[in-house]
Amino acid sequence: MAEIDKMLAANREWAEHFAGEVPVRPARAVAVVACMDSRMPLFGLLGLAIGDAHIIRNAGGVITEDTIRSLTISQHLLGTREIVLVHHTDCGMQATDDVSFADLVEAATGRRPPWAPRAFTDVDADVRESMRLLKENPYLLSTAVRGTVYDVATGLLREVV
Amino acid sequence: MAEIDKMLAANREWAEHFAGEVPVRPARAVAVVACMDSRMPLFGLLGLAIGDAHIIRNAGGVITEDTIRSLTISQHLLGTREIVLVHHTDCGMQATDDVSFADLVEAATGRRPPWAPRAFTDVDADVRESMRLLKENPYLLSTAVRGTVYDVATGLLREVV
Repeated sequence: MAEIDKMLAANREWAEHFAGEVPVRPARAVAVVACMDSRMPLFGLLGLAIGDAHIIRNAGGVITEDTIRSLTISQHLLGTREIVLVHHTDCGMQATDDVSFADLVEAATGRRPPWAPRAFTDVDADVRESMRLLKENPYLLSTAVRGTVYDVATGLLREVV
Repeated sequence: MAEIDKMLAANREWAEHFAGEVPVRPARAVAVVACMDSRMPLFGLLGLAIGDAHIIRNAGGVITEDTIRSLTISQHLLGTREIVLVHHTDCGMQATDDVSFADLVEAATGRRPPWAPRAFTDVDADVRESMRLLKENPYLLSTAVRGTVYDVATGLLREVV
C-alpha cells in the first residue's frame, strides 16, 4: 500500500472525531516558519490549537522569496503580526554544502540545479540571518520576529538571542 | 505576553513527556506539500508519527522553486520517494488575485511586490497543475505524487484524480 493510502485511511478516523470548522484567520495572529524535518509536530511542540497560526515549512526553515510571499499573504490578507522561527539540531542542511549537493544531484539526474540548497553550518547564525532578512523586508506589515532552535534529542525549544 | 512566550512555556510541558530522538531520515520515505492554513495539523489529520515524513508548507501549498529545492533535498539527501499534496477548502488564496493583492500591498507599504501571490480559483485544478509541475521536474529522483483536498468543515481528505 502506498503511504498516501494509509494516510487516507487514517484520515477517515480523524474525521469521525472532528470538532467542526474554525475561522480562516489565525486566532493568535502568528506565523511560524520552520524546517520540514520529520521530527517536529509543530502543533504539539508549540502548544498550538487548530486555527491558531500559519505554518510555513521548507528545507532548513530558511527565508526565501517563497517564504516572503507566504508571510506577506499571511499578514496582508489574513491578519498575522508576529513571526516565530523554528530551526532545529541535527538538521540535514548542516550535512551538505552547495557544491557537494549540486554534484550529488548532477550525478543522479544528469542536471545541475541552478538554485543553491541553502545549506548552513551554524544553526544559531542561520536563525539570526533569517531574523535580519525579515526585519529588512519592505513588504511585511510587521517584522516582530523571534527565533528558536528545537532540540530533537530532548524536545526542548531554545530561543536564539 | 507575546505569542512566542506562550509557545516557549507550552514547549516546556511538551519536553517533560518527550519520548526521545528518532532518525533524521523520514521512516515512511514520504514528503507532504501542504498549504500554511492554520486549520491543518498534518500529523493528526494524516495519521503521522514523529519521524515519518517531511512537511513542506507555503501559502496555497503551491509548487515554487523553493518547493522544488526542498523536495530535491528530501529525496537526494534524506531518501523520500513519495510526494503527497494537501490543498484545502476555503483557502485564502481563492479570495484574491494577482492585481488585487499587489494593489493591497502597495497601498499599505508603498511597494509593489515583484512576485505573484499564486492565487487560484479552482482548488482541484491547482492540485492537478501541481502534480503536472512535479512530474515534469528534472531534479527529482521520484515523481510518484498524489494530490488531495482537505475539507476544513468536516476534517475529511479527498483525493483528486
